[in-house]
This record gives sequence, structure tokens and C-alpha cells, in this order.
Amino acid sequence: MLIEKSQIEQHNSDNQASHQKRFDFIKSEIPQVEAVIQKLIDFQIAIPSWALGTGGTRFGRFSGGGEPRNLEEKIADIGLLHKLNQSSGAISLHIPWDIPQDYDAIKNLTASHGLRFDAMNSNTFQDQKGQELSYKFGSLQHVNKAVRKQAIEHNIEVIKQGLALGSDSLTVWLADGSCFPGQLNFRKAFQNTLESLQEIYAALPKDWKMFVEYKAFEPNFYSMTVGDWGQSLLFANKLGPQAYTLVDLGHHLPNANIEQIVSLLLMEGKLGGFHFNDSKYGDDDLTAGSLKPYQLFLIFNELVEGMDAKNMNHAKDLGWMIDASHNVKDPLEDLLQSVEAIMIAYTQALLVDRKALQQAQEENDTVKCQEILQNVFRTDVRAIVAEARLRSGAALDPVAAYRKLAVRQELIKERGAVTVATGL
Amino acid sequence: MLIEKSQIEQHNSDNQASHQKRFDFIKSEIPQVEAVIQKLIDFQIAIPSWALGTGGTRFGRFSGGGEPRNLEEKIADIGLLHKLNQSSGAISLHIPWDIPQDYDAIKNLTASHGLRFDAMNSNTFQDQKGQELSYKFGSLQHVNKAVRKQAIEHNIEVIKQGLALGSDSLTVWLADGSCFPGQLNFRKAFQNTLESLQEIYAALPKDWKMFVEYKAFEPNFYSMTVGDWGQSLLFANKLGPQAYTLVDLGHHLPNANIEQIVSLLLMEGKLGGFHFNDSKYGDDDLTAGSLKPYQLFLIFNELVEGMDAKNMNHAKDLGWMIDASHNVKDPLEDLLQSVEAIMIAYTQALLVDRKALQQAQEENDTVKCQEILQNVFRTDVRAIVAEARLRSGAALDPVAAYRKLAVRQELIKERGAVTVATGL
Amino acid sequence: MLIEKSQIEQHNSDNQASHQKRFDFIKSEIPQVEAVIQKLIDFQIAIPSWALGTGGTRFGRFSGGGEPRNLEEKIADIGLLHKLNQSSGAISLHIPWDIPQDYDAIKNLTASHGLRFDAMNSNTFQDQKGQELSYKFGSLQHVNKAVRKQAIEHNIEVIKQGLALGSDSLTVWLADGSCFPGQLNFRKAFQNTLESLQEIYAALPKDWKMFVEYKAFEPNFYSMTVGDWGQSLLFANKLGPQAYTLVDLGHHLPNANIEQIVSLLLMEGKLGGFHFNDSKYGDDDLTAGSLKPYQLFLIFNELVEGMDAKNMNHAKDLGWMIDASHNVKDPLEDLLQSVEAIMIAYTQALLVDRKALQQAQEENDTVKCQEILQNVFRTDVRAIVAEARLRSGAALDPVAAYRKLAVRQELIKERGAVTVATGL
Amino acid sequence: MLIEKSQIEQHNSDNQASHQKRFDFIKSEIPQVEAVIQKLIDFQIAIPSWALGTGGTRFGRFSGGGEPRNLEEKIADIGLLHKLNQSSGAISLHIPWDIPQDYDAIKNLTASHGLRFDAMNSNTFQDQKGQELSYKFGSLQHVNKAVRKQAIEHNIEVIKQGLALGSDSLTVWLADGSCFPGQLNFRKAFQNTLESLQEIYAALPKDWKMFVEYKAFEPNFYSMTVGDWGQSLLFANKLGPQAYTLVDLGHHLPNANIEQIVSLLLMEGKLGGFHFNDSKYGDDDLTAGSLKPYQLFLIFNELVEGMDAKNMNHAKDLGWMIDASHNVKDPLEDLLQSVEAIMIAYTQALLVDRKALQQAQEENDTVKCQEILQNVFRTDVRAIVAEARLRSGAALDPVAAYRKLAVRQELIKERGAVTVATGL
Repeated sequence: MLIEKSQIEQHNSDNQASHQKRFDFIKSEIPQVEAVIQKLIDFQIAIPSWALGTGGTRFGRFSGGGEPRNLEEKIADIGLLHKLNQSSGAISLHIPWDIPQDYDAIKNLTASHGLRFDAMNSNTFQDQKGQELSYKFGSLQHVNKAVRKQAIEHNIEVIKQGLALGSDSLTVWLADGSCFPGQLNFRKAFQNTLESLQEIYAALPKDWKMFVEYKAFEPNFYSMTVGDWGQSLLFANKLGPQAYTLVDLGHHLPNANIEQIVSLLLMEGKLGGFHFNDSKYGDDDLTAGSLKPYQLFLIFNELVEGMDAKNMNHAKDLGWMIDASHNVKDPLEDLLQSVEAIMIAYTQALLVDRKALQQAQEENDTVKCQEILQNVFRTDVRAIVAEARLRSGAALDPVAAYRKLAVRQELIKERGAVTVATGL
Repeated sequence: MLIEKSQIEQHNSDNQASHQKRFDFIKSEIPQVEAVIQKLIDFQIAIPSWALGTGGTRFGRFSGGGEPRNLEEKIADIGLLHKLNQSSGAISLHIPWDIPQDYDAIKNLTASHGLRFDAMNSNTFQDQKGQELSYKFGSLQHVNKAVRKQAIEHNIEVIKQGLALGSDSLTVWLADGSCFPGQLNFRKAFQNTLESLQEIYAALPKDWKMFVEYKAFEPNFYSMTVGDWGQSLLFANKLGPQAYTLVDLGHHLPNANIEQIVSLLLMEGKLGGFHFNDSKYGDDDLTAGSLKPYQLFLIFNELVEGMDAKNMNHAKDLGWMIDASHNVKDPLEDLLQSVEAIMIAYTQALLVDRKALQQAQEENDTVKCQEILQNVFRTDVRAIVAEARLRSGAALDPVAAYRKLAVRQELIKERGAVTVATGL
Repeated sequence: MLIEKSQIEQHNSDNQASHQKRFDFIKSEIPQVEAVIQKLIDFQIAIPSWALGTGGTRFGRFSGGGEPRNLEEKIADIGLLHKLNQSSGAISLHIPWDIPQDYDAIKNLTASHGLRFDAMNSNTFQDQKGQELSYKFGSLQHVNKAVRKQAIEHNIEVIKQGLALGSDSLTVWLADGSCFPGQLNFRKAFQNTLESLQEIYAALPKDWKMFVEYKAFEPNFYSMTVGDWGQSLLFANKLGPQAYTLVDLGHHLPNANIEQIVSLLLMEGKLGGFHFNDSKYGDDDLTAGSLKPYQLFLIFNELVEGMDAKNMNHAKDLGWMIDASHNVKDPLEDLLQSVEAIMIAYTQALLVDRKALQQAQEENDTVKCQEILQNVFRTDVRAIVAEARLRSGAALDPVAAYRKLAVRQELIKERGAVTVATGL
Repeated sequence: MLIEKSQIEQHNSDNQASHQKRFDFIKSEIPQVEAVIQKLIDFQIAIPSWALGTGGTRFGRFSGGGEPRNLEEKIADIGLLHKLNQSSGAISLHIPWDIPQDYDAIKNLTASHGLRFDAMNSNTFQDQKGQELSYKFGSLQHVNKAVRKQAIEHNIEVIKQGLALGSDSLTVWLADGSCFPGQLNFRKAFQNTLESLQEIYAALPKDWKMFVEYKAFEPNFYSMTVGDWGQSLLFANKLGPQAYTLVDLGHHLPNANIEQIVSLLLMEGKLGGFHFNDSKYGDDDLTAGSLKPYQLFLIFNELVEGMDAKNMNHAKDLGWMIDASHNVKDPLEDLLQSVEAIMIAYTQALLVDRKALQQAQEENDTVKCQEILQNVFRTDVRAIVAEARLRSGAALDPVAAYRKLAVRQELIKERGAVTVATGL
């Protein structure tokens, strides 16, 4: 299924009057709205290939209908999203779930949807059929050099595939760790992992980045070998200038102050990218902004402040990706909701009066600092985000358009009601 | 210091134009705005007498200037707040920090500020000078009947004082618990506490309520004898129809779903009241809505839904109180911020389309359910809250008015720069 | 594979000398050792049928060799465990993973291994092939009465199967809940669940118990409809005298004081049973006692104290079951370790000097209370547990015997190296 | 009060027979017991001067009798402890709570008790009487250079006092952070703190160490400027070779794996020292080993493994200190319990069969790894610790001896029943 330009235009035309009224109002309230809109148009969030099917938990998975059955259909799905919001212009592949058969065909298909290839993701946390050695006890950390070698080669293979597709970064998330005290020598696990990462790093093209993702727990429940930002930063520093830390919002201990971590990583020049989602307990992989929208805003507040302080380009100098799982929602609707929440948080962060905030901070005027942030957060910026979409040819209300166009029903017709996309 | 009506009027006149524009816009967006405004006008949040001074932690306390030096000045402070927002029309006393000398004089003073007496708070978590027996090892739970007796009598005394002042409820928060495994027999501690509460309950006037507050930890760090809503509900059910559970937002284990607790307590007819604040780690006592404004909205969403289902009066049938501590802010400014955050959350909860939400729930349309709640939360309702204030004679922007009128500077002139209010 | 009596005897004979020396020592230290040993012999812990295969997480599952391929082989595995420790004399079935074909044959087989049937477990958290309606949005809580009906009937079917096998209790664990704010009306979900449970309860034979298990989170990540002991107790009280709360050690929020919950549930006469495991972050399902052995002891301390206060029979009046998952261990070895940890904790709890503890509590002698508990916990009671095994015909060191007898290798020979048991 | 050598001897003589029997047994079980005993004799744990009085919480403080009224009496108290266990041979001072009047006299007094001066502790989290500038908004992080300067000078002053007393390290614990989003620019707070620490570092004598302590939360409840080991390590690395990270067991987010942190810091050569205590919720400051004794053992397991790997001297190359607070115990009894728990954990860690563990790790034999650690932990090593005490002239059972000698009663006689030691 393809969404026609005329369908988007029809939707926008139907909603134009009420939108215009809201946009006029907010424009009259906020002088710098035009500058903000341009930044919103430039800002693109990558969609991971595994988020297009219904997710699951270890207790069960309840697939929906019309899920993509192969890489081509995954790309088509992201094409639909991008058509609707013009903010999802990149795809992040997961190997081996998404190994292309014909690289040129895939590149052409992707380009035809206006998409580019974001970070490549390797997988050494599962055993694949026919795999020689098992990752049951870890991969890059493994006590057995042969297992490490196998995992290193897989990562190098992923880099090669990424090169063929036009990607320029590799995300390494390791499930490595231990489930019981004593199982692991922490120091040796770290050293093995470092040595393995160094071999992968050596295979990295010069213009590539390597993202070292950390996670506090799961699937290992006693220790994780890249467990927090401190460990990830240690690795990134030892690896070299192309290595960075990647922050996934769901990968922290309870109550962690993620925005502070973001600020410090930017300070160190070592923040590489972001995985957006939301969570209450752990790596719950819920829709971005669905539980803690203020936290999402505070994180963007640090991102904007910290990137501006280093003259970084918001759209290009960090990797932005959603990493969520949609157990009880239509995956495409959920992704539209996630992108919307992210754009809202970004917009609000752009509206913070930096000078006034800095002055209030210098005066220890805590009340004022809070007023500045909360006044922005309480401002209804939805019309600004919608206007940015309008100008870039997307739908004023993506979820409504998606439903009106009966996209899911069309996909079910095309692909069938019982489909299971590769992924978790 | 008193704020004159004309001063409020001047402030409102200065801000009228921009307010009117915003209110006109939101009114054009939300048809039911008038019904909401009346509910906002009726809604009053009690201010605890101990929140008027700068709080502290066990590591230190940094007092500000112009803090109230006695009960009369505390009442005056709440009078100032109420003048500014007309939403703080009640005071919650803490005995023995606030024992009146002359009951009639205090009642008259309070009435002159348009205030009433909300729940009375007893204190058996500290030893007072000259107190015969110590609460080091608990009060109502104590293994020694004489200590329990002393604590019971204190509570009965607090009821008497409340009667004299026109209050109609008693909040019992117990620090009772244990710091080390083995220190306590949990069952006996529960039974002793129950027996003690029953004696207090027996002394309760027929039109009074008793609120049994729970807290997960602090100041005891191994067990708390009224540690969660389940324990509080057990007590309330065993005590009788006048006993209720009181929820303090900061008194839960990490990640607790407080809005679900609220809903179930309402279902059981046993929710009595609320202590508002915000927190990240424990009983941090931060400004309401300063960290998790969406949670605050979700709680109000359950409150409105559950109270309406039982035909309860929002303003009268539950006890609403702030319980925060202001270590790094001017206490009065902080309270204004807390009240504002509460009013915003309440307004948004009133705007939820209950029918649409119910229908989406019946259809398991999770995406729609989220859209309904988040669209309300993303709506800028500040002008509605301001309009309610305007109509009740309060200031359009209380914090701005407070600063413009230099209230704190006046209080420092009156009371001095080095003052320490009673409290934590 | 069967372990012969003579094989056990040979193992014990090989280890007799060192055991006797240790037992003689501890016996000389602890006068009441004989009474303790008899209680240990009587104490049996049920093994869940799903714990005999290698578990997994949502990120992967690494099966081991020789896993049981059907119910008969699961029973055989528990028979092996029971032969080795004589403390695992019961099996807890999970329907539909373990539906017997021939009830009499299964009963006979089970009896031949000296095992009985413990609580039956229903499953309404997964969709089974050919199932008419989906549990994607819950089962007993579902907004659709037809789905609830289907789930009720499944539970009644499980009761019938249990009756045919000689079980006398039903454990209801519900994954029901919600992943996003707004998805659920908490009150209606509770009421639907209650109504459903009442229908199941009505089908319960008069001498059966129903266990209502609670869980704080996972697989739902915003709310769980039976989320904590307070909710479970509400259900159990509303259901009637045959309904009880079941405590699983991994089903709590961070830092919960589980031993206090146990004590209060015993006080209320509503503790029904226990699922043993250990965890650091959530429902990690690690080996009992592998992370927090002192907590396990403290829980047993409350169990012994509370059960004795009500003259309950330790072995019979509560349901004891392991509920763990063994991602990186041989499942049988892991279960032997779990049982050992439980027996040690139980032994230590039996050794607590109740009179001395009570006196120290009455005197608020916290230091002494701690000394009493820790002195017991620091006592090496392994020889007592081993002696109990010796006397009941089991192995002095079950894990060592298991390895010496090469049980796993035998099972792989019998069943093959690539086997996957039903379960998570 | 002084404890006479003969009093200790009498106590030991009374308990000799039962001790000898236990020691003989454990010696027969553990061949390497003599080597262990020598290490125990060498191992000394510093006592902080503020732990000798009853602690408190922000809700209250319940002082006991006979608390030390000045530095001399604090030294005398530690002298009593050291007499009883010969393992508390150092004192850690807190400035300005313990400023000596006469340095030589204090040094002589301390030496007369066989004590030395451990790390000096500065205090910039409270305002002292007459202090020019306030630390309400931080100290080394403060936006105002003058405040930072004041805090820097205080730290330099503390170094000078430490020099005069013979100390050789400075512990910097900062309460600096923020209570509300926006209050602080995280990056600038870090940079200010770094700059301030650099000035202090520059004043450090060449043979001194600086310990940078981290803490996750309290007294600031939104962010802490040295909030986790990652931040502390960043500071330590930027400062230079004399700067190290200090780990306090109560300063982590829920569920943190502290033993892994310890291992990695040792790997990096940046672990400086330890503050022992125990906790369930936060910085609860409970007796070491009172809640999670297995965790304490696991930490020592990493300490021994990691220090041995670097040929470090257990007794000398790290700073060992208790940092607890004793709200419901006699402080001296509590400290005896803490030291005992630490010595037991250390003993058990020394008994781990490193070769066997390493081999099991190399084979991914998780069951065996667990057996090795738990078998050691389940071993009753109290007689070994007691024997070490016996040989160094201390009491077999320090708490029992303390009570038999009625030390507290004597102190009350000397100092009075109503005394409040300086500290929290």
C-alpha cells in the first residue's frame, strides 16, 4: 500500500481551518516560531526495523494482522510512516533479522520512500540456526576466545552490510553479563569485551561511529558487562574518537537522573545517540512520552542546551532512534505516537528562554528556574509541530489520517491477518 | 502584612489584556469551560502550618528570612496565599508545634482571612521537652502499654483542640516501625497499633473522620507499621466507618502505581484524603507537579472518575492538603507553585471526555485511550485556572504578584531576617 | 533413568565420615537438633513442571540437553530430584502445558516416584493454538464477557483435571493489567476480575483452596490488576474462606519488606502459599537464596513464628513451591540448589530462640534482637540438613551425587541433546 | 572509663572452653586458617568520630546517655572499642565537629589508646555559626566564586589539621546538587566542582590521597553533582594520581550491583576507600551486614580478588571506615556489631578457593561457581574471627564483654544521662 500525496492533501484540507486558528494563536504568543519550525522539519527519527511488528514478553506475544513479512515490507511500513509525518526518514536495521538479498534493490526501494539507513544493529544475544558456538554465556565477554571471535566477525559483517547500504554507524548492544554471583570475573569480562570491541573498532570505516549501548539489567539479572553510562564511557574512551555512548531511556536503575547523564556525556564529547521509549519498571519499551512526558522534555532541554554549547547540529550530530515494542497497540500507530511525543518535547526544549534560565540559575532563583521550564512545558505546541508537518507535506494529524485511510485494513488485505514480523 | 484588594486589582488590570486573549482562545476550543471554572472556584487546598518555614534535611537546614514566628503569623501567611490565589482557604495544624493560646482569638483571626481549619495532625514521632515517656521505639505500637497510653492521650487532646477550632478530622501519621530485622514482632506491633487507634477512634466526635496515613520508609528503615495502602486499609476497615486511608504522594516504594491505589480506595469507599507533593527517591517533599506532572494528572483523572462514579462532591468529600518542604525556595512562592500545579492537573482531569474514554476502553483501543488523556494533558489550561482566580478576586499570576508586591521583603521587615518556623 | 537406592547408599557411605564429624559438632552445639531434623524430614517443596527445562527471556532461550519432552519425563525428573533429596515430593502442574492423556497412568507413575500433586496452575496469559478468543487485553478482567467466560471455563477445567489427579488447590496467577495510562478502568477491571474469580470459586470442591497470586509488574508495565498483597487480600476476603493470598518472592516493587507482608497475611489467616525464587530487579526467577539468603531466612523466621502462633502444621498448612527459571544452569542442579537453600533457611528459623527474642523485643533491646537472629544465621546448619536427608534415604550431597552419577549425561542419551521442554 | 587488660583476660578465660572447641572444629575443616588469622589481626577499620553519638533523622533524634561531649571523649570511646576488638585502631575526624584545641595532646591521647588518624572529613553541607557565605545552594559547585573559595579554603584547612594529627588522606563528600529541574546547569556545576577540587588537590601533600565520595541522592533530591561512581571516576581521573573514588554502601540507586563497581574501580586503579553500613532504601546508615550480609561478603570477595590481582596490601592500600548512624542502638554496641560483620565477611572472602572459582568460571559452570561462594558463606567462621581477637589481646565476644563490664552505665556515671554528641 502506498499513501498518495492527494490523500494527505485531502486530510490537511479537511483539518486546515481548526489548525490555522490554533497555529495563529500560538504564533501570536511565540515570536520565534518560524525558526523552531525549520528545526522541526530537519529533525528525523530513525525507526528500527523490529518495531514494525507486535512485540512480546517472555510470557507471550499477541501478533496483529498485516505485519511486514520481510525487509521490503518493513521498508514499506516506514515509508507509510514517513509519508504521514515526514519525521521518520531513516531506518535502523537489525542483523540477522533483516539481511538484504539484493543490496542495490533495497537501497533503491528505501530511497524511493525518501528514507536513509541509520545505525546498523548487531545481535549476539541470541543463537541463530546453524550457528557454530552459543552465546548462552555471553559473546564479546566470553571466556572462550573462539566465541568472542565469532561475535567479533558477526559485528564486522554487519559493518560491511551497513557500508553496502549507506549506513555510517554501528550500535553494539550486549546482553553480556551474569545471572549469579561468582559466575563471572567482572574484570576479565570487561577486558575481554574491550579487546573484542577494539577488534571491531579496527574494522570501522573512518567516517563511521560506533555506539556502545549500556543497560542496567535484563536479560542478565545479576550483572551486565556494559551496565551503566560509567562503564560505557570507559569503553568509549579506551576505544577512541569514533566510539560513543548510546543512551536508551529504559536501560537504567530506578530513579536514575537521565538528563544529567545526557548533559555530562555531551560535556565529555561522548554522547553518540539515543533510543527513545518510556518505562515505569525496566526496559518496558513503551511509547515515548506515554508515562513521563516531563522527563522527555527535560532530556531534550539538556540536549538542546548541551548541543548548542558545542555548536552541534541537532539533526545530524547525534543518532536519534525509537526503540520500543508495541504489545497492545498497532505498531504503526504507536510509532506515530512516539514520534509526536518526541517532536513536542523537542519543540518545547527549543522554546526555553536560555538567557533567562541562565540568569535565574546564576541568582539561585529556583522558583524562577522552575517557572521557566514549566511555562514552556505547559504551553500547547501541538499546532507548531503540525505546521512543520504541513509545510513538509505530511499530515496535520498522522494518527487520524492513518485511521481515515484504513491503512491497517489495507495491509491486512495485502499481507494477511496472521503474520509475525521478525524481532522480539 | 496584608495584601489589599486594590493591589490585586491593579495586578489583574495590568495583565488583563494578555489573559483575555488566551482565555478567549481556550474558551473557543473547550465548550464546557464555564462548568469547569465553577469547580475550580470551589476547590480549596489546605496548607499545613509547617510548610511556611524553610524545611530541612538531616544534613542541615537553611532558614530564610521573615518566617512566621508563631501560629498567628502562620495564619497570616496562609492569608496572604489565599488572597493571591483564593484556592488555599484552609489550614492544617500540627500539634504540638501550633498549640493555640486563645482559641476564640485564633478562630477569629483565621476567619478574618477567609480560612477554615482542615485536618488536625498529631505528632508522636518526636519527644517533646518534659515528655514523660519516649517515642524512640514507637508510639501507638510500643511494647509498653504506658507509652501507648501517652500517645493515645496526645491524639485525644489533639481532637479536643480541633473541636475547639472547628476542624472535623484527625490525621494520624505514625513513624512507628523498626530499623533492624528482629527488632519488632510485626503482628504484635500491628495489634498494639490497632488497639491504640481504636481508643482514639472511640474519642472521635460522630461527624469527624480519622485519616490513617501510610508510609513505606523513613524514619524507620526496615519496617513501617503502617507501611502501605494495604495495611492502612486493614486498619481503616477494622476501625469503622469514620476511618479512612490517607495517601501522601511521597510515601511509596519506587515505581508504585499511585493512581491505581487511589481508584481502588475510592471503590472501597475508604479514600479519605490526600497529601500533595512530588518526589524522585522517597519522601522528598518537593513542590507538587515539579517532577512528575503527568502522574499528578493521572491521579486527578482517577479522582474525578471515581468520585463522580460515587456522586461525591469534589471539593468537600475528600481532604486535600499540601505536604511539602521547601529547602531551597521561598516557602510561600513554593506553595503558590504547588497549588497552581494541582489546579492545572484538576482542570485537565475535568476536561477528559469520559464517554469517549469509556468507549475506547470497551474497544481495547489503547491508542485512542492514550490520545484522549494526552490531548487533554497537552492542552494549555493555564488561562482557565487564571480566569477562575480572576472571578474569585485572586491574582491572575500569583507568583508574579507576590514578587511585584515584595511580600517577602515586607515580611523580613516585620519579622526579621533570621527566623526559624517550627516544623521539620 | 532411575537412581538406585544402592547408588545413594554408596554416595552416602563415601561421605559418611566427614559428615558425621560435622554433624557431631553441630549436635553438640545445638541441643534441640533432633526435633529440628524431624521437621526437616516432613517438609516437602513442590516442583513446578515448567522448571525442568531451561528457561528463557524475551531476548532468547538457550536450551540444554536431555530436557523432558512430555509430562511423563517431567515426573521422572522430579522423581530423580526426590530420590536425591527426599524433599521434593510434590509436583505442580501447569495447564495447558501438561495435560495428561491418561489420568490413572499419570497418577500411578507419580506415586511410583513417591510424589503427590500440589497446586494446579491455570494459564490465561497466553493464547493457545485454536483458542477462540484472545487474552491480548486480559482474561478474567476483560471488558468482553465472552473472553472472561472462556478464561473462567479454563480455570474450572483445570480444577477438574486437578481433581482427577488428587490435587487440592488451584493457583490463579493473572497477567491481567494494562501497559498505558487510560487503557483500563482500574475499578471495572477489579470488579470484572472479582466476578470471574467468584465463578471459579463456586466451582471449587469444598476441601480445595484457591490461591490468588499477585505481581507488581510484567508482562503488563503500567498496572497489574492483582498487583500487590493488598489487592490480593481484597480479592481473597471478598471470595471467602477457601481463598488465600499466594506470595511469590519476585513479584514485588523494589525494596518491599516481604517478611512483614508474610507476617500480616498469617495474622489475617489469609496466607495460602509460597513461590520461592530470588531476584535483584524484578521477577528474575533466580535460584532461591542465591542473592539474598538473609532475606530468605527472615521470611522463614516470620513463617515459623506466625504458623506456630496459630498452631499450624509447617509441612501441610501452607503450599510450598519453587517458581524459578534456569537460563544458565542445568535445571535439575538448580532445583537441588534451591531446595537446599530453602531447607537451610527453614532450619535456621527453627533454631531461633523464640523466648529470648520475645524478651529482647519486649525490652527494645535491638542489639540483642539482631544478635539472636544473626547468630542463628551465622551457624553452619548444613550438617543438620544433610542428616535429615541421610535419615530419609536421600543423598548427603545431592548436587555432588547428581554429578557423580552423571544424571544429565544419561538423560541426554535417553532423550537427545536438542530438546525443549514446554514452559517459558 | 578504661577497660583493664585483666578484665579482657577474665572474659576470655570465662569463654575459653567453648571457644576452643569451636575453633578446633573449624581449624580441622580449614587448613589455611593460620594465614587467615594473621590477615584478620592486621585488618583495622576506622571509626568516624560522629558515630559515637546516637544518630537521628530529620523527624527526630533520641539521644542516649553517656555520649561523648568532646573530642577527647570520642577518642576515649574508640579506645574502648579497640580494647574490646583490637580491630578499630583508627579514628576519622569530621571538621568542624571535632576541631582539636591542642594537637599534640590529642595526638598523644590517641596514641595512648593505640589509635591512628584515618581520613579527615570536611563539611561544606552545613552552615556553621558565623560563617560568611551560605552553602544553601552548594559549595564547590556554587555559581558564586566566593562561596566556592570559602569551601576550598575550608578543605585546605582540614588538610592542615590532618597534617598536624598525622592523617594522610582527605575525604570530600559533597551534598552539592539540586532539588528541582532547571535549578542547575549540570555541566557548569561539574566544571565548577572540578575547578574547586583541583585547587584543593593542589594543596594536598605529596603522600596524601584525596577520596571523592559519590552519592545518588539526599540531601538534594533531583540531582547530585557527584552522584555515581562514573562521575566520581571522571573527577578522580581529571584530578590526578592522588585522587580516588570512595564507595559508601548506602549511596546508590536501588538494586545497584556494588561489587561490580568495586571490581571495576580496582581494575582502573582508582578505588580509594570504603564506607561501611547497610541499607534497604537509601542512605539508611544501618549496621554493616545487618540487612544484606551476603552482599557484604560478595563485595569483600571482589576486594580480595581485585587487590590480590594488583598485589595490594589488604590492610594498608585502601581506606576502611564505618559510616553508620545508630538511631535505636547504643552506638558502641552497634559499632562492635558492624566491625564483627565486616570481619566475618572478610574472613569468608579470604577462604574462597580462587583457583577452583577461576576454573569453574572458565568452564561456565555457574552451579559450581555458586557452590564455591555459598559454601564459604555458609561456613561458620565466627571462631576464626574470635581467635584473631584472642591472639591480639581483645575479647572473644566484644558485645558480651561490653555488657558484662557495664561500660555504658559507667559512661553515664562519668558523663551524665543527657548528652548529645556532635554529628547528624
